[in-house]
Amino acid sequence: MKNSVTAYAPASVSNVACGFDIMGFALEQPGDRVTVRFAGEPGVRISVKGNGSQSLPLNPQENTAGMPVLAMMKDFAPDRGVEIEIEKGLPIGSGIGSSAASAVAAAVACDALLGCNLPREQILNYAIEGERIASGAVHVDNLAPSLWGGFVLIRGYEPIDLVHLPVPDNLWCAIVCPDIQIRTKEARELLPKSIPLRDVIRQTGNAAGLVAGLMSGNYELIGRSLHDAIAEPARACLIPGFLDLKNAALRAGALGCSISGSGPALFALAESRSHAESVEQAMLKTLDGRSAPLLSFVSSVAKRGAYIVD
Amino acid sequence: MKNSVTAYAPASVSNVACGFDIMGFALEQPGDRVTVRFAGEPGVRISVKGNGSQSLPLNPQENTAGMPVLAMMKDFAPDRGVEIEIEKGLPIGSGIGSSAASAVAAAVACDALLGCNLPREQILNYAIEGERIASGAVHVDNLAPSLWGGFVLIRGYEPIDLVHLPVPDNLWCAIVCPDIQIRTKEARELLPKSIPLRDVIRQTGNAAGLVAGLMSGNYELIGRSLHDAIAEPARACLIPGFLDLKNAALRAGALGCSISGSGPALFALAESRSHAESVEQAMLKTLDGRSAPLLSFVSSVAKRGAYIVD
Repeated sequence: MKNSVTAYAPASVSNVACGFDIMGFALEQPGDRVTVRFAGEPGVRISVKGNGSQSLPLNPQENTAGMPVLAMMKDFAPDRGVEIEIEKGLPIGSGIGSSAASAVAAAVACDALLGCNLPREQILNYAIEGERIASGAVHVDNLAPSLWGGFVLIRGYEPIDLVHLPVPDNLWCAIVCPDIQIRTKEARELLPKSIPLRDVIRQTGNAAGLVAGLMSGNYELIGRSLHDAIAEPARACLIPGFLDLKNAALRAGALGCSISGSGPALFALAESRSHAESVEQAMLKTLDGRSAPLLSFVSSVAKRGAYIVD
Repeated sequence: MKNSVTAYAPASVSNVACGFDIMGFALEQPGDRVTVRFAGEPGVRISVKGNGSQSLPLNPQENTAGMPVLAMMKDFAPDRGVEIEIEKGLPIGSGIGSSAASAVAAAVACDALLGCNLPREQILNYAIEGERIASGAVHVDNLAPSLWGGFVLIRGYEPIDLVHLPVPDNLWCAIVCPDIQIRTKEARELLPKSIPLRDVIRQTGNAAGLVAGLMSGNYELIGRSLHDAIAEPARACLIPGFLDLKNAALRAGALGCSISGSGPALFALAESRSHAESVEQAMLKTLDGRSAPLLSFVSSVAKRGAYIVD
C-alpha cells in the first residue's frame, strides 16, 4: 500500500448556456492537484498552496477537498489519519469548477490511497460532499465532467442519472475571466424562482438541440442551440461589459458564448483551436479597456477526467 | 397537369412527455386523405366525409385544410378555383394531430395539383395556416412529423428550426383514447403561465435525455426520460382515471406513457410491437370499467410522412 497519492482533476464548464444545472464539460487544463498521505495520528489535516490558497479554510469540514476525504476515511479507515495537500491550479470563484476539481481530486486520491478502487459513481458520491459546502446544494454539473472528462448530461438528480455525450473532435473552448468576484450562492439568489412557459420551451428546445448537435457532430446546430433563457439574463448584470464580451466572441466566429457556471468567467465554443484563439483574443481586446483578465486560455473539450499523477 | 390529386397524411404524437411544444413523431396510421381538384369556377369549396365530418366547418377560412389551399391558390393560381374533399381517418379533437394531418394532406395535394413541387419547408409554411385556425397559435409539433415522418425536434420557433432525429427500429407506440372531448384551446388555458425552476431543470434534463436515448438507440434512457413536469400535471385532471391508465401501461412494460398532444388520447412507447400490444390491452382493460374507447391501436413510429396517393 502506498503512503501517498496525488491526483489531478481538471477545470470544467457547467450550464453551457442552454443546459442550466444539467450539463457540463471538462477542459484539458488548468486543474487542481491534491495529495493525500497517511499521517501518524488520526484525523484529517489540510495544507494549501497555489492560486488564492490563503482564502481557503483549513478545517476539513469547511473545505471542499476535506469533506470527501473525511467521509471516505470514516467509511473505510476510521482509525487512521491523513494529511491533504491541495495545490490550486484553478482560481477560486472564477466559475470554471474550482471547488469541484479540488473535491474530485481529493476523492480520487483518497480512493487510491486506501486501495478501495471504487467505481466512479461511488467516488462521485464522496466528491458531492465537498461540492455541497461550496454551493449549499447538490450539483454535479462540474463534478461529473471533472471526474469522467468529456461532455456530461445530468438527465436527472433523483437518482443521479449521467449520460456521457460524444464530443466532436474539433470542439474547442475559449475561457476569459474578468478580475471580479462572484459568489456561487449570490449568483444563485439572482436566479428567477419560476420561468415563463415561453422561455421554458426555448430552453428545452435548445438543450435538446445541443445534444443532437453534439451527437451528430453538427457544429451549426451546436451554435444555434447555445442560448440561455434562464441564468444568463439574470446574471449578466454581475459581469460589467458582458454583452460587449459576448458580441466580440460571436463576431470573432464563436459558435456561442455565455457565462461559465455562475461566472465571472465567460466560455465560448469554437470549431477549431485557431477559431478559439481568435475568439479569446477578441474578448481580451474588448476587456482591455476595463481591467486585466484574471485568467484566459483556450482548451479542447477534455476526453480524460481526473487521474492519478505518478 | 393532373386535374385532381389525393394526398395522405398520418396521425402524430406531440409533446412526447418531456418535449412540450418541441417534439413530435409520426404514426403509420390512421391518417387523413385530402383530394384537391380544379373546379370550373374560382374560389375554394370543401366537402368532408369520415370521422366526425359533420362537425367540421365548410367555410375554407375556418377549415384546417381550407386555409393552406386558399393561401397556395392565392400565391400560385389566383384566377382558378378548386374543390377540396376531406376524408377524415382521424377522430377530431383526439390529440393525435387530426387538424395537422388535414392541413398537411391539403397542402401536399394542392402543391402537386399546381405542379409547384415546393420544398417541404415551404409546404410546412402553408400547412401552418391551417393549424393556426385549430389552436390559435403557430405550432408545428404535429405538422412537421405528419409532413416528414419520423421523430422531429423543433429546436426553435424564430425561425422554425427542425431537427430530424433517428428512431430506433423497434420503437412502437400504443394509443388509447377515452371517449371524452378536450378542446386544444381549453387544454392550453390550463397550462401554468410560469414553471418553478426546479421543474424546468427536470424538463430540460429529460428532453435532452430523450434525444440522447433516441440517437443512441438506448431504450432504457428513452424510458427514464419520458416524464413531463409541465403539461401532464396540469392536464391530467381532464382525463378521468388518467393515473390508472398510465400505471397500467407502465406495469405492462411501457417505456413511458403520457398525454398525446393536449389529449384525451394517451400514448405509450414500447420496445417492440408485442410490448406495445400488451400495453394497449392493459390500458383498454383499465378503461373498461369507465367507458368504451374512442380509438385504440398500436403503430411503429412512421419513417414516412405525407405522400401522394395514386
